[in-house]
Amino acid sequence: MGELLEKAKKLKKASKQLGMLSTIEKNEALLKVADHLLTEKEFILHENAKDLEAGKDRGLSTSLLDRLLLTEERIEQIVDGVRQLVHLEDPIGETIEAWERPNGLQIQTIRVPLGVVGMVYEARPNVTVDAGSLCLKAGNAVLLRGSSSAIHSNKALVQVMREALKGTAIPEDAVQLLEDTSRETASEMFRLNEYLDVLIPRGGAGLIQTVVQNATVPVLETGVGNCHVFIDETAEKEMAITIAINAKLHRPSVCNAAETVLVHEKWPYVSELLTRLLEKGVELRGDETLVSSYSFVKPATEEDWASEFLAPILAVKQVSDVKEAINHIDQYGTKHSEAIIGENAENVRLFFQAVDAAVLYHNASTRFTDGEQFGYGAEIGISTQKLHARGPMGLKALTTTKAIVRGTGQIRS
Amino acid sequence: MGELLEKAKKLKKASKQLGMLSTIEKNEALLKVADHLLTEKEFILHENAKDLEAGKDRGLSTSLLDRLLLTEERIEQIVDGVRQLVHLEDPIGETIEAWERPNGLQIQTIRVPLGVVGMVYEARPNVTVDAGSLCLKAGNAVLLRGSSSAIHSNKALVQVMREALKGTAIPEDAVQLLEDTSRETASEMFRLNEYLDVLIPRGGAGLIQTVVQNATVPVLETGVGNCHVFIDETAEKEMAITIAINAKLHRPSVCNAAETVLVHEKWPYVSELLTRLLEKGVELRGDETLVSSYSFVKPATEEDWASEFLAPILAVKQVSDVKEAINHIDQYGTKHSEAIIGENAENVRLFFQAVDAAVLYHNASTRFTDGEQFGYGAEIGISTQKLHARGPMGLKALTTTKAIVRGTGQIRS
Repeated sequence: MGELLEKAKKLKKASKQLGMLSTIEKNEALLKVADHLLTEKEFILHENAKDLEAGKDRGLSTSLLDRLLLTEERIEQIVDGVRQLVHLEDPIGETIEAWERPNGLQIQTIRVPLGVVGMVYEARPNVTVDAGSLCLKAGNAVLLRGSSSAIHSNKALVQVMREALKGTAIPEDAVQLLEDTSRETASEMFRLNEYLDVLIPRGGAGLIQTVVQNATVPVLETGVGNCHVFIDETAEKEMAITIAINAKLHRPSVCNAAETVLVHEKWPYVSELLTRLLEKGVELRGDETLVSSYSFVKPATEEDWASEFLAPILAVKQVSDVKEAINHIDQYGTKHSEAIIGENAENVRLFFQAVDAAVLYHNASTRFTDGEQFGYGAEIGISTQKLHARGPMGLKALTTTKAIVRGTGQIRS
Repeated sequence: MGELLEKAKKLKKASKQLGMLSTIEKNEALLKVADHLLTEKEFILHENAKDLEAGKDRGLSTSLLDRLLLTEERIEQIVDGVRQLVHLEDPIGETIEAWERPNGLQIQTIRVPLGVVGMVYEARPNVTVDAGSLCLKAGNAVLLRGSSSAIHSNKALVQVMREALKGTAIPEDAVQLLEDTSRETASEMFRLNEYLDVLIPRGGAGLIQTVVQNATVPVLETGVGNCHVFIDETAEKEMAITIAINAKLHRPSVCNAAETVLVHEKWPYVSELLTRLLEKGVELRGDETLVSSYSFVKPATEEDWASEFLAPILAVKQVSDVKEAINHIDQYGTKHSEAIIGENAENVRLFFQAVDAAVLYHNASTRFTDGEQFGYGAEIGISTQKLHARGPMGLKALTTTKAIVRGTGQIRS
């Protein structure tokens, strides 16, 4: 039996035990995990150094090496994350709905763990612990499939987590790392419906598409964000400019950053908006009118409207009204986060109704699409699909339901 | 452009209009559909006769021909189904949760349509109208892909539905039949992520597996039910026997029928249970002990424990306690509907906690796993998967959410 199948079987078994634990038992185990990660800091850093060494030899870029890097401080952040999970409300066991049928049947839907979660992710080794511990808190066993470039770090982190679980109520087999990072084994993992209840890919568009295209296990798609800020005719000057700058520049490399600003052609402050963005170092790519009016605006290509730049580059377009803005977003958006800035309530209503996206904003930055910012305390990813969970996914997104029906001998007639 | 892509584009466009309609507008259109189906009864029956003729020529079995058959009465039932939808609460627009963040952001999650639903189903032409109208009520456009054996009936039904929608608020393009029933086009449909938001297969295990194995569009898996009734030591005699008979025989061909009865070895009435089942015409397949004690019980094979017989055949096994029953269900069950009959509250609690299935029953028949019986009014299928919806799926399962965030200029710091 290969590594994948062997671990999958252990996970399924462990998930049954884990699903029956109390909140206290899970929290105690998570605190042990946090403590042990701190204790084993040196070992983890030592193993992480091997990945960095190998990465340098393979000529990885500085930014990729930075994603791979663990430091004392980063380990402490990871540990803080695990400790914070202890304070989050346990979703398991919650009664969602309860009702009685005319024949006397008492129906109750309750929240239960999904079972076994398959995490598929790229270089950042912190995902190993962040996602792993989040799965445990929601009562799920987790199969972690990271990238080969982080294999020493991931092995070390999982080893430390498993050591910490010994002697706790959570079976150590509830956390497994798939050490075989070959494509063939990944493909097998994506089709392991008998053992995996869900796959959650986290990473770039390429990784996510690989999982979606090849999986038969249901996928919680987290994804690409080509987010827009639409500045309506009535937008307050400072608010609009501040939000556009924040949405673009606060952290350009993430999915909830804005990639295009749409400006109502009658909004009087477009010149100041563009100048301020330019001063902040943003490369501007605009429509014909803007290009002819502002020498520092480069012409936007068709591709630019569809791009998630993940960089300080912004596409800018003037539109004649909210409907043109909605149509543009409909054509190029990725159903992630879309904002309207303005004081015309009817336009806001129309924008909220017509734009199909996970999160819609009025007079706020798209950067708030985030589990922490939504108050979920932690996040396993941001769903850009429509089934199961949409937008930031916290602990609840890692659960399913069970219907419990209590009768007194009812039969169907 | 092929038929599939052309219709998919029209559906996507229509879904946007449909998603913005009021409940009254949708209900008025549904009533028109109901009326017109009655008016065009003769035409529908005439077209249905062509399918039956072709089916006889191809040597279809009597039961398959019966599934294909429409009669005046069956059309009236279909029409009643559409009319009943009008009385169901419209899930669209419902506020699910609303909260405020410390920074003043007002977050609200609301229920919105999925968009475009792809229904993939087998012979029964009633699904064309049942599923089609249910999708419309939830604000979704629907692509119907039935089987070639029902093509004339399906064409007629969709033609009549579309005619009825003319002049209503629902665009007629919101309902489309994929007339090309080739496998190649089906495979293309299953991977049409740009236009389809979800696939719902309804039919036998083969059809469902074909969709799951080939789809990249998210699938709401409806499925096979290998359901169990566990009769605990403390079960009341008449209640247990009545429920076992009902679960097996009320309608043996459906997924919520019981396929195996597990009996606690100390329950004193096994002889009467088996005799009564036999008298009702049930073929019994049992474990060694039962076979050696009762001449009319045939030996059950390993395959029998895993079978969804869909026929008056029942596997019967004696178990030593509730844990053995749970383990048996864990090994052979399909996570659909599982029942425990008995008066030991601790065993019921354990059964409810440990058995992983969509619906669990205490002292009631598994036959209640059904949208109508749950009080959902209508049902698009019974989900046996864990994401999005589990168990009977009513209108809510055909919706997703949108988060609406209202700010006063908040940016992320």
